[in-house]
Parts: sequence; C-alpha cells; structure tokens
Amino acid sequence: MTNRQIVLKRRPAGKPSPDDFLTNSAAIPVPADGEVLRRTIYLSLDPYMRGRMSDARSYAAPVPLGGVMVGHTISEVIESRDPAFKPGDLVAAYDGWQEYACSPGQGLRGLERDLPLTTALGVLGMPGLTAYVGLIDLGQPKAGETVVVSAASGAVGSVVGQLATIRGCRAVGIAGSPEKCRYVVEELGLDACVNYKTGELVPALRAACPDGIDIYFENVGGAVLAAVLQLINRGARIPLCGLISNYNEAQPPPGPNLLPLLVNRATMRGFIISDHVDRTGAFLQECAPLVRAGRLRHREDIVDGLDAAPEALAGLFEGRNFGKLIIRVSREPARDR
Amino acid sequence: MTNRQIVLKRRPAGKPSPDDFLTNSAAIPVPADGEVLRRTIYLSLDPYMRGRMSDARSYAAPVPLGGVMVGHTISEVIESRDPAFKPGDLVAAYDGWQEYACSPGQGLRGLERDLPLTTALGVLGMPGLTAYVGLIDLGQPKAGETVVVSAASGAVGSVVGQLATIRGCRAVGIAGSPEKCRYVVEELGLDACVNYKTGELVPALRAACPDGIDIYFENVGGAVLAAVLQLINRGARIPLCGLISNYNEAQPPPGPNLLPLLVNRATMRGFIISDHVDRTGAFLQECAPLVRAGRLRHREDIVDGLDAAPEALAGLFEGRNFGKLIIRVSREPARDR
Repeated sequence: MTNRQIVLKRRPAGKPSPDDFLTNSAAIPVPADGEVLRRTIYLSLDPYMRGRMSDARSYAAPVPLGGVMVGHTISEVIESRDPAFKPGDLVAAYDGWQEYACSPGQGLRGLERDLPLTTALGVLGMPGLTAYVGLIDLGQPKAGETVVVSAASGAVGSVVGQLATIRGCRAVGIAGSPEKCRYVVEELGLDACVNYKTGELVPALRAACPDGIDIYFENVGGAVLAAVLQLINRGARIPLCGLISNYNEAQPPPGPNLLPLLVNRATMRGFIISDHVDRTGAFLQECAPLVRAGRLRHREDIVDGLDAAPEALAGLFEGRNFGKLIIRVSREPARDR
Repeated sequence: MTNRQIVLKRRPAGKPSPDDFLTNSAAIPVPADGEVLRRTIYLSLDPYMRGRMSDARSYAAPVPLGGVMVGHTISEVIESRDPAFKPGDLVAAYDGWQEYACSPGQGLRGLERDLPLTTALGVLGMPGLTAYVGLIDLGQPKAGETVVVSAASGAVGSVVGQLATIRGCRAVGIAGSPEKCRYVVEELGLDACVNYKTGELVPALRAACPDGIDIYFENVGGAVLAAVLQLINRGARIPLCGLISNYNEAQPPPGPNLLPLLVNRATMRGFIISDHVDRTGAFLQECAPLVRAGRLRHREDIVDGLDAAPEALAGLFEGRNFGKLIIRVSREPARDR
C-alpha cells in the first residue's frame, strides 16, 4: 500500500490547470511516539489555494514546488501513539492533497458526532467561521441595515447572507447564474439576489437595495466592488475577505475608485481567518444549533476521487461548482449518529 | 461702500480656473437683532473646495451657481447685535469669498490672542484638526511604528508628520519638489521625504521605510497610494483624508489593486473632519502649546487680495503653493499680543 499524493509541479500563470500538478506515490508514514496516522476521507477545495500555488508575497508561505498541496481535510485515525486519539476517531485536520498523513495529535480537532462530517469543512468549518467573523465582528450588523454579499451561493457567502437575515438585516446576494440567484433567494431566504453577469450592475443593485448598502462582505473584487461602492451609505463597513477576480491575474489589475469610501466615511478592512481562530467557540455555539435546526442551510458539491482535485480546483475559479466544493478521497466509515 | 464677493459662475470640467468665477458687488448687510457683521481679513483656500464647485454626490451640498464660494475665514467684528461680541473682536468664521458677512453670532469662534491670527486657518484650524483626528484617532500610532504622509509639506500633511515624530514614530513624507522635501526633513524634522515626481516611487519608499509602513495618512490617491500599498505592514491603518489626484477628473479614475489590504489585514477608513469637531478641545490642548513652543512648525503661503483667490485655487491643484494657502482679503488690525 502506498500514499498517493498530489504535488505542485509548477506555479500557474493565470488560472490553475491540471497540468500544474503531478501525482506521486510515497510510503505510508509510520507514527512515532505522540504521532497520529490518519486516512483522508474528505478534502476541501477553497479559493485561497490559488495564493498558495504562487510565490508572490502573501500572508502564508507558498507550497514549494514538488510539495504536497495543502488543504483542510476530514480524516479517520488509523493508528495513534497519542493517548488523546484512537483508531476510528474522526478528526478535522489540515492534511492536504494526499491519502494519508501523520503528525502529532495537537493539530487535530474532534468532530461533533450528530452532524454530517462534511459540515466541518463548510458551513461549520473554516468558510463558516470566515463568514461569522467578517459579518459579525467586522461588519457589526444592526437590525434594519442592508447587507450585500458577493459569491452569495458559495461556502462563505451563503453563511453571510443567512446570518444577516437572522440578525434582522435586509440581505442581498450577488451571484453568477439564474440558478444560483434562485437558490440564494428561495433556499437560503435572502431578500434578493443580483446576477452580476446580466445587465447593468448598479441599477440592479440599486433596485435590490432601496435604502443603500450598510455592509458589503467582499469576496470577489473587480467590477462588482466598483458597483457596490456607488451605493454605500454613510459609515458603511466593507470586510474584505477575498478578491477572487484578482487571483489569476499575472499583473494586479487596478481597483475601484475610492472616493465613495472617503465621501461616505466608510471602512474597508482586510482579514485572514487564521488570525481569528479564537472565535471558533462562539461561532460553533451560535451556528451549530442553527444547522441542526435547519435554519442555516448549506449546499455541497462533492466530487469523487483525489485525482479529480486539480480539475475541480480549476472549475472553482470559473464558478463551475455550486455549493461548497469537496473531494471525496475515500469512503466515509459507517458510524452511529 | 459695497461688499465685493466672488461667486461661482459655472461648474468646472477638470481643474478649476479663474473663468469659473465672477466678481459681484452687493450691499453691505445690516445686522438684525442677534446678528454680527464682520469684515473678512483672511480667507483659507483648501482642496475640499473643488468638491463644493461640483454637483456630484458628496458629503456636503454644492455651492449653487451664482452663489458666494464657501471658505473658512478670520474676520473682525464691525458691528454686533449679539452681546457675546463687540466691534474689534477677531473671530474664526465660515464666511466664504467675500469682504463682509453677517449672521447670528453662534457660528463664530473667538481666537487665542497670543498666536498669529492665520494659525487659526492652518496648523490650529481645520487642517490641523484633520491631521490630529486622522493620525491620532484613526491611525492609533505607537512609538516605533512607521508613518507615511502624502502632501507632506501641505497644511494637513505637515502637522501629521510632526505629530508622528512627537509620538515616537518614524515619519516619512511624500512631496512634489526637492524644495518641499528639504523643508519636510530639515524644517519639520521628519526622518525622510520622497519626491514622487522623480524616479521610481516603490524603491524610494522602500529605502525610506526599511521596516515597512504601519500608517499611511492618505491625501492624494493615484499612483502614490498604489506604491504605498506595496509596502504596508500587517495590521496597517490608512486614514483616507483626501484624494486630491481625483478631484479634477471628469470620470473617476480606477484606484489601486486592493490585494495588499487583504493580505496584510489592513484597514482603510474614510473620514470627513466635520464629523469630528468634538475633538477640537483635545486637539487645541495638545497642539496650541506645541505651536507656542515652536515644536509644531508651519509655513504659510499668503496671497494678497480677494481677486487673487480664483487663480490661487487653481494653483493649489498644481502644487504651486508651498505651505498653507491663505488669501489676505483686508489688512490685519493692529493689536496687543
């Protein structure tokens, strides 16, 4: 038995493509004292991965050429030399694009047994925490305000929009297809959703936000941000979570004119979720019950097989997935719930 | 005797020009009960005036066509039907581009008698307060941090740089001529000053800011902001005070790429000084003694005659003035200090 891994072959120019990766076979590691060996069940694919493929200055080191691609995983403990874990335990880890991983147990988090495993990668994982910190801590939403979120059907955006609704805000999504917009309004319960690919964005947003925009949760950048800035209210808050429209550009494209920030005394603040892991407890305390009660809905786009990851990641930057993109690396073990 | 006034003839396309104004003669008003008639001594010219000449959406109403241009003034009370004022009193007002003005006394502020009158329009007036609020309240400087300020020899920028030095920061200016840069370093005492008109801005700034940039006090926008963003540190604060490079553009130009804000978890916040007049007391308490002691230096560019105001305002947008731009509308009365 070997450990199949996907490693970075070259740094992409523009969109990532399957040709940027290579498949490797390594020996399955043997755990040393204090270490835990686990098997990957699910691998999360997320936009930040484009940054790790590049060697441009960023908030985290790039994956080295020839190195295993990073990524959040749900894994099953196979062998443990850490007394806190035993074979069969299911854990959230950061094991990357490979079938097996081995390291000390302290980086592993046990999972709540009464929820589907995959929620720990999406609505109750890093994307959900990102939505919570950006909207609640940075955005400071007040009932009656208008919250706009881009990539509204995505893993982060879908939680932002629903939490805004739950806090009594008018919540308006921006998404890239009629199906996604319908999902955002009909399934997630947002007040409106604008398709950024059809027609003029500013009038469509103005119609959806008759009282202007108080909070804009930014995932995409580009023309969408420029349009939103035309409509922000005095004192608007703009948590800057992602700029996905920039990630594949060889040269950083210009941004929007910033005069609306000045005139409206608005605040734009970049954040990286790894700075805010101390908020995980508060987040899960509020959101896990909402997921259990069906009030915080989520959608997953699960793709089979580690080999499919390179192509699926390319699709993420074209908006091909619909819902949280997850690779099923191996079968989920049967378990009692 | 008449009241000469300069009124807005047309809204400029691009840079303001003397042709945008007309000179008018009106009767000198007669104060009603509770009103105060005063004569303008000094008129302040400031970049925000470009916004008042335009009818684009902004934070304050535009000057109507045919209306007297607005502006901060230092004035002498000529006649008073408000018991709080008497003829000969010197006051700070917002009387605009005219020789006489009349209104209730509550909008007038008495002046400290031991300081030059013009300081109330610059270092201890609205520009100084703007510097104080933007740097101290929004920027939250800590000793040892690096503060960069654009338009560093100007009315606002010169106070920002000196206050940063006083707080124990490394202070670096950006200005538009060798003379201005020399003044910023040699007279104001900043650690370095970069001329944005010569050579590559990013390497020059990098050399001046070996530890990166923690606070950028933004007055200008455009290429300067884009260069600064290349060098900001994690957690950087960017008080957005002005975007003077934008003000004369018919179409809002694009802004900088915002990825550095995200990657560095930086905060950019627009502010308008009229929201912060409650900070005037704290500002004067700290800064008036610094001016008296010669530790907060300032430079004025005083131009004679109300008729010179239109041409002087045009020069402000070309960086022609050097120091706080002030129009001497009438002679300062002799007084005991």
